[in-house]
Amino acid sequence: MSDTWTPRLDRDGLAELLAEHFPQAGDAASWLAGAGEGWVELVLPFSTDQLRPGGTLSGPTLMTLADVAMYFLVLTHIGPEPLAVTSSLHIDFLRRPAATDLRARAELLRLGKGLAVGRVEMSSVGDPRPVAHATVTYALPRTENE
Amino acid sequence: MSDTWTPRLDRDGLAELLAEHFPQAGDAASWLAGAGEGWVELVLPFSTDQLRPGGTLSGPTLMTLADVAMYFLVLTHIGPEPLAVTSSLHIDFLRRPAATDLRARAELLRLGKGLAVGRVEMSSVGDPRPVAHATVTYALPRTENE
Amino acid sequence: MSDTWTPRLDRDGLAELLAEHFPQAGDAASWLAGAGEGWVELVLPFSTDQLRPGGTLSGPTLMTLADVAMYFLVLTHIGPEPLAVTSSLHIDFLRRPAATDLRARAELLRLGKGLAVGRVEMSSVGDPRPVAHATVTYALPRTENE
Amino acid sequence: MSDTWTPRLDRDGLAELLAEHFPQAGDAASWLAGAGEGWVELVLPFSTDQLRPGGTLSGPTLMTLADVAMYFLVLTHIGPEPLAVTSSLHIDFLRRPAATDLRARAELLRLGKGLAVGRVEMSSVGDPRPVAHATVTYALPRTENE
Repeated sequence: MSDTWTPRLDRDGLAELLAEHFPQAGDAASWLAGAGEGWVELVLPFSTDQLRPGGTLSGPTLMTLADVAMYFLVLTHIGPEPLAVTSSLHIDFLRRPAATDLRARAELLRLGKGLAVGRVEMSSVGDPRPVAHATVTYALPRTENE
Repeated sequence: MSDTWTPRLDRDGLAELLAEHFPQAGDAASWLAGAGEGWVELVLPFSTDQLRPGGTLSGPTLMTLADVAMYFLVLTHIGPEPLAVTSSLHIDFLRRPAATDLRARAELLRLGKGLAVGRVEMSSVGDPRPVAHATVTYALPRTENE
Repeated sequence: MSDTWTPRLDRDGLAELLAEHFPQAGDAASWLAGAGEGWVELVLPFSTDQLRPGGTLSGPTLMTLADVAMYFLVLTHIGPEPLAVTSSLHIDFLRRPAATDLRARAELLRLGKGLAVGRVEMSSVGDPRPVAHATVTYALPRTENE
Repeated sequence: MSDTWTPRLDRDGLAELLAEHFPQAGDAASWLAGAGEGWVELVLPFSTDQLRPGGTLSGPTLMTLADVAMYFLVLTHIGPEPLAVTSSLHIDFLRRPAATDLRARAELLRLGKGLAVGRVEMSSVGDPRPVAHATVTYALPRTENE
């Protein structure tokens, strides 16, 4: 039997959580475009400061989106726990993304007591071919003291 | 016999290159703190927008520093080639970095015709213990058409 | 529009290729359980020399399966080219696999001129939950001299 | 101040531990060539079954050596705990290794309560240029029940 995961936080709950605990995140909650059992989807609006030479999006733009997508995936599934932190991230850049909005779909591979692991596939809006693929591990704060 | 690599671009050359081809990079060239055969060192000045909940630096702050360090390592060793792009990046977060300046030392593992591979060790200024460790691959533009 | 990929080599073609160029691979071609556009599936038969303390399969067993799955994925899609070599591999171990046959499904993320990138999901036969997830990059020999 | 780590297990202790708990490891303890504070060094003897097409060592040979090097690094530093398991592994293949003995040097980046992270550099005996570079994470069993 497969694991099932139920989202515990919606877009408004996420926006409130970030506003209270993570002001540096700005309006990132508005990137959340959808959520369901074991997945979230984000759309990052294009802006010119994401560009790098060659007219493509910079690596840090995509890495940040992957990290935020996984953070939202964790928060929507474990509830309001702003102290979850990235433990490792691996990303492969597959194609040069166009200068347009970027879509990310993050899926849980494992949600354990201490760690959550997921993968994130990114593509340009309007083109289904993946531009980058990441696997991300988050360390979850424990309820008991360690 | 070990490979040897000679830097071909200094801080001023790097600053000029970025100003011309990569205005989004802002004053990142000023982060370059040293360079030698097969390595560069950067210091990223602390600012409050790097913080995340828990008072530590955000994952994207460290990933961006790792990527920029590898970009500078590549540019200083192959010369002015702004079209080199990140091909993959792997990062392990080891300790929560303090709210202070961040040091990165990047070292070449391989500089081939099509790919450059390096590792980046990051630590807080004033504390030698590594806070993160990355390996980064850059795809280098080829002089001949492919 | 999405990329499409057509398999160019079936199980018999793969077995012949390995017998001729890769005798150390033994009967690995018999692991191939299915192939289609952009994917292959393998089943690795259990044997006791795969065990490690705790009665679970060893890490090298899973890494070898991921690497072989990606090799078969590349060969079935680019045709008989035994000199394709692994360029990088990232694997997350998600759950301890049971002492039983192991299934791997590998999917192409990108098939370019010089590199192929894919992801491999592994699970125990009879349990759909993933036990490990890998992303693998292969360097493809070029037809022209470099 | 930097972390310091003291080895708690020597080659004979390692050989005994493997003989008792990990018979599948065979005589791997004999690969241990040296150990000190925060590092171990291994030498893997060459054998023809490590070869792949092109006369170079196969990817699984190098991945297995990286994993075993990290396992020995963990065991020599936390003491006899055979249940430590690989949690993730990332490897970059840098040059095609010659058909000869392979050296690995593994260094601790972090030894925490639940996780150990290290990096492993591999080279052919007689040639100091790295042929592969890995970062490996091990999950450590906890003394208290989770």
